[in-house]
Amino acid sequence: MKNPSVVVKKVEGKEFSCDLVIEDRPIPEIDDDEVLLEMGSVGICGSDVHYWTHGRIGDFIVNEPMILGHEASGKVIKAGKNVKNLAIGDRVSIEPGYNLEADDYAKNGRYNLSDVFFCATPPDDGCLMKYYKHKASWCYKIPENMSYEEAAFIEPLSVGIHACRRANVTLGDTVLITGCGPIGLVSLLVARAMGASKVLMTDMNGGRLKKALECGASDTIQVTREQTPEQIAALVEEKLGGKPNITVECTGAESCIQTGIYATKSGGCLLLVGLGKEMANIPIVNAAVREVDIRGVFRYCNTWPIAINMISSGQINVKPLVTHRFELKDSLKAFETTRRGEGVKVMIKCLPDI
Amino acid sequence: MKNPSVVVKKVEGKEFSCDLVIEDRPIPEIDDDEVLLEMGSVGICGSDVHYWTHGRIGDFIVNEPMILGHEASGKVIKAGKNVKNLAIGDRVSIEPGYNLEADDYAKNGRYNLSDVFFCATPPDDGCLMKYYKHKASWCYKIPENMSYEEAAFIEPLSVGIHACRRANVTLGDTVLITGCGPIGLVSLLVARAMGASKVLMTDMNGGRLKKALECGASDTIQVTREQTPEQIAALVEEKLGGKPNITVECTGAESCIQTGIYATKSGGCLLLVGLGKEMANIPIVNAAVREVDIRGVFRYCNTWPIAINMISSGQINVKPLVTHRFELKDSLKAFETTRRGEGVKVMIKCLPDI
Amino acid sequence: MKNPSVVVKKVEGKEFSCDLVIEDRPIPEIDDDEVLLEMGSVGICGSDVHYWTHGRIGDFIVNEPMILGHEASGKVIKAGKNVKNLAIGDRVSIEPGYNLEADDYAKNGRYNLSDVFFCATPPDDGCLMKYYKHKASWCYKIPENMSYEEAAFIEPLSVGIHACRRANVTLGDTVLITGCGPIGLVSLLVARAMGASKVLMTDMNGGRLKKALECGASDTIQVTREQTPEQIAALVEEKLGGKPNITVECTGAESCIQTGIYATKSGGCLLLVGLGKEMANIPIVNAAVREVDIRGVFRYCNTWPIAINMISSGQINVKPLVTHRFELKDSLKAFETTRRGEGVKVMIKCLPDI
Amino acid sequence: MKNPSVVVKKVEGKEFSCDLVIEDRPIPEIDDDEVLLEMGSVGICGSDVHYWTHGRIGDFIVNEPMILGHEASGKVIKAGKNVKNLAIGDRVSIEPGYNLEADDYAKNGRYNLSDVFFCATPPDDGCLMKYYKHKASWCYKIPENMSYEEAAFIEPLSVGIHACRRANVTLGDTVLITGCGPIGLVSLLVARAMGASKVLMTDMNGGRLKKALECGASDTIQVTREQTPEQIAALVEEKLGGKPNITVECTGAESCIQTGIYATKSGGCLLLVGLGKEMANIPIVNAAVREVDIRGVFRYCNTWPIAINMISSGQINVKPLVTHRFELKDSLKAFETTRRGEGVKVMIKCLPDI
Repeated sequence: MKNPSVVVKKVEGKEFSCDLVIEDRPIPEIDDDEVLLEMGSVGICGSDVHYWTHGRIGDFIVNEPMILGHEASGKVIKAGKNVKNLAIGDRVSIEPGYNLEADDYAKNGRYNLSDVFFCATPPDDGCLMKYYKHKASWCYKIPENMSYEEAAFIEPLSVGIHACRRANVTLGDTVLITGCGPIGLVSLLVARAMGASKVLMTDMNGGRLKKALECGASDTIQVTREQTPEQIAALVEEKLGGKPNITVECTGAESCIQTGIYATKSGGCLLLVGLGKEMANIPIVNAAVREVDIRGVFRYCNTWPIAINMISSGQINVKPLVTHRFELKDSLKAFETTRRGEGVKVMIKCLPDI
Repeated sequence: MKNPSVVVKKVEGKEFSCDLVIEDRPIPEIDDDEVLLEMGSVGICGSDVHYWTHGRIGDFIVNEPMILGHEASGKVIKAGKNVKNLAIGDRVSIEPGYNLEADDYAKNGRYNLSDVFFCATPPDDGCLMKYYKHKASWCYKIPENMSYEEAAFIEPLSVGIHACRRANVTLGDTVLITGCGPIGLVSLLVARAMGASKVLMTDMNGGRLKKALECGASDTIQVTREQTPEQIAALVEEKLGGKPNITVECTGAESCIQTGIYATKSGGCLLLVGLGKEMANIPIVNAAVREVDIRGVFRYCNTWPIAINMISSGQINVKPLVTHRFELKDSLKAFETTRRGEGVKVMIKCLPDI
Repeated sequence: MKNPSVVVKKVEGKEFSCDLVIEDRPIPEIDDDEVLLEMGSVGICGSDVHYWTHGRIGDFIVNEPMILGHEASGKVIKAGKNVKNLAIGDRVSIEPGYNLEADDYAKNGRYNLSDVFFCATPPDDGCLMKYYKHKASWCYKIPENMSYEEAAFIEPLSVGIHACRRANVTLGDTVLITGCGPIGLVSLLVARAMGASKVLMTDMNGGRLKKALECGASDTIQVTREQTPEQIAALVEEKLGGKPNITVECTGAESCIQTGIYATKSGGCLLLVGLGKEMANIPIVNAAVREVDIRGVFRYCNTWPIAINMISSGQINVKPLVTHRFELKDSLKAFETTRRGEGVKVMIKCLPDI
Repeated sequence: MKNPSVVVKKVEGKEFSCDLVIEDRPIPEIDDDEVLLEMGSVGICGSDVHYWTHGRIGDFIVNEPMILGHEASGKVIKAGKNVKNLAIGDRVSIEPGYNLEADDYAKNGRYNLSDVFFCATPPDDGCLMKYYKHKASWCYKIPENMSYEEAAFIEPLSVGIHACRRANVTLGDTVLITGCGPIGLVSLLVARAMGASKVLMTDMNGGRLKKALECGASDTIQVTREQTPEQIAALVEEKLGGKPNITVECTGAESCIQTGIYATKSGGCLLLVGLGKEMANIPIVNAAVREVDIRGVFRYCNTWPIAINMISSGQINVKPLVTHRFELKDSLKAFETTRRGEGVKVMIKCLPDI
């Protein structure tokens, strides 16, 4: 194959479930403002697996075959004539989404809320393939001390950066994070790097809590379905010696949103990263009269330069979160591993790394 | 009577309902940091009426007789020896609540979230009486061109200021306000003064909508119980030629909170001022992924100097909102009028006004 | 002439002085993301005159002939195939500058700090001509109730919006504006619209102070060269009954910068709009220990949608600032008028207006 | 002596120079809202030494004998009857300044700009003595794992916190700090803890630069008087691979302020902590048109709870900055050491420490 690519395809007669195959695709032609990349590392995200297993996420439906992958890095092997920020040979991290028009959101610095192209969100193809082209402005040169793997990890890290930034995490904050999956863990890393003095994490799964402690959580609580949100909030307050001023909710569960409100200190912020069912029953008066702000996030914006600085300077270490590695040709095994919920982050290694 | 005072008293054997009487009370003795005031004007708030008719608001229960009134102004007739900001004869507007301790909230400028004294919130007495004493630091000298009535109106206006400030209303914003009661109307005045270019208001009551237009609303929608939140949101978008970037919810109704989320532009803010039932079912995913922030308010802080500037400079005109006036001795009639829901603001005039 | 255009040309053998002529230019060919405009109104800015009379502004030198004009509006008469935000016949206001690359500044919402194209800044041509092409994303459709003249005025108004926004003008602020030229006056209009309760303006010229009062200044001070900055600051404090919390400096004079620091309230902001000599001697310790922030502005960003809302809703009225009007063919007379410092804003009317 | 106290006294016939003596003072009587403390550790600040050697700082003149010391911690041995936040035996860190009135600054959370009491600033006595009384609200209980020494260090650390917070240091920032004295070093610690990825420090003294590297500076430049501000700015850019987005100026030298402006990235911030001569000649146009904000600091506010969290959680380690320790009875030796400019922080140990 010239350009092996990992593709999900709708199965005829079967609603919302896809086949996952490696197909050959032509090597892309580039426009004047694009670069052609030989891919370095590509991480597998829960959403990639979800398109494969369910054929859709909300209103985004896999009607046509779609290449997966949006956590990625690579090497520039060709550059359009208008490209100024990159040269052939540069190693880059790829921001997978960008605004299609210079609309008001984009002009105001919130391009994530614009109408966007986004890798591996129907109908836009992703980048889990050998050769991929991208707008040069959305590829960021990485320093020599950064691996392709770290560069690919900037995408999930960006979710944590955007979340913690929207929550205004700063010096001396105490933070509660509900849920110790990949997003909970990156939020932990970022909250610490932004100055949080204590980060307490909750999960039902003991193994995940152990990982959280390894990654720098100051304490953990293993919660159960039997506990009420008020009870968990009381435990949090007891463990921290006071209510956290920020809660980052990473599960999407209604009960965790409720816990987040009860647990957060008056004047603080509940940041919603996890997504669950459309409607949730929440103690809105409790939140309102205690001025606990409720904020959500949609992906991220303006995180790449920051993430590169933080990783290359050593202030954030994402390496412990990469638990499995596969070659591109073994991508289907990699997806199986992710589907089984093993480890934290599964990486496809397309190029040898430092 | 030396110091006639309007008092609510628990009726024996009857749960959560009170008598309303005018009683004589001693003229208060002042501490070194207090002033004795002869009251100018005192407005009647819905909460005053509610303590009379229901004997409680949430956890605040009228167990002991309590003087009502917290929207007030007066004249300094005596000043403690440590008082520096006021002199005898000064006309003042009274901020009815203040922090009891110099705790972290107070030091950070959010004293409304501290443990507070607050007029006419059990067990703290209010100020609807002839002579009242208050901490001098929380009485603000008003200029000659401001009436006692305007000075008393600063309290409800402050709710609008705090709400619009928490919602970051600024130049060119389009704002939706749900509910045209007193708080909706003061939010309208403030939103306009902060630069909102369009303010659309909704209510079920046509008379209230008419008042809203008189006070400066750019447009109104008369809503019905039959309309879904999505339908109302669509009407709002149509009328404004786009979604409002801020919604100020002043009813507390679950359906209006839902409308507020659907109606608000991505990246905007839903500000909750109205309070309804403790739990509400809300489209939280819609809010989260469109980064529509949900914020509440608890009373206000740091609004008095601003309100004095705005009213005395003529940029906000609160006079049209005062629809009824009574003398102190006719306070019971004034409360009856307020209970019947007539007009917007009912004022008790204790001293002659400019 | 097919496309009469107002051009400055370097005069051979004469350093830094230009000829001003009306020349015919080809009607521009448009790219896929551009629109061709028949120009509506074009305002003359002090910088246009300066390029004519001095041939340069700082490092920007008129080496090649350059079309002048950057305060402009027009009608779409042709649209590139990728244009989505506009249709033929739309009346638009033109934002004359935009970022050339999607760099970090642009992504963060501060595109004014990016490397930019900017009308009538060498080597970029301006738009004082009959037919002009521009990027469609930087042309904003105006409503029916807005004239071409108002639409052209958005450019100078934007300087005031950016300045007042950078100074965080808000409800109840007292503002000092030093200098009553066009920029001082638009800053006044904007400060008022953002909620400033008092705006005091200073100038040496009595006629300009009169204009300031007409435009809504609450008070004025006619200053003289004999007064020290400390003396003027004391007068300001006396007139306002306290120090202003914000000063907008619109002259660039060293003495006015000094006045701005002495005059501004502790914790406030001195905003520098006027530009003078490169180095200035300023009372930096006074500013620092009183936490008076010193901020400058470079043009503006994200002001057009706001300005359109404010003008079309009637909350800002720019009409009194247009004091002279000329047809395109009389442009040279218009420039003479501006050079003599007559009136406030001189407009070239290319199309009939509402 | 019952209550040995370190006192500066004006010397008759000698202007602006003081004697430094240890005198006995009565054990203070406390008010209802005060606590009596047995002092733990007290750090010596440059200002303490300056009052001794010069008899004044600016307008603050030692006319009457004054007890020195304002970086302090202690143990509660008596509490007034209204004290709620502390109990006898509590170990506390002392915030040495507080607002005297509940004025607008204090209500808004900027109490440092209010009229204040401040330890060891004439005419207010400091706390370098065995027994000292203070308002209980401005004493903060410290956890068991924090030493008296660390608790005393919160005061200088607060200067760094306030500076970095006013400069909005956050994740991924690159920071230049000019001057490696105690304030430069605490700013370094705080900038790192707030997420700065690179902190470059400059000084003329090689020993101080070495200390900066030990404390976490990513790089240093040894500057000389011969270098121009532009030259140093160019070196900074070269070393960092780009301009820093924040500069924290800790020397007060005019040339360093100039360097700070030239060096800082467009859209960034120059934060002035060091204080030099009243007037400075600065490249104001360069700062203004690149939107480099210039901000100063006056002491600090709202830093104690944050500092306690940061030190007790181990995210900031101040121990390496304490280079000399003396007993209270040897205070004069301690002052001599500080005057000679030895080490970083000299501590007086009044109570045994953990």
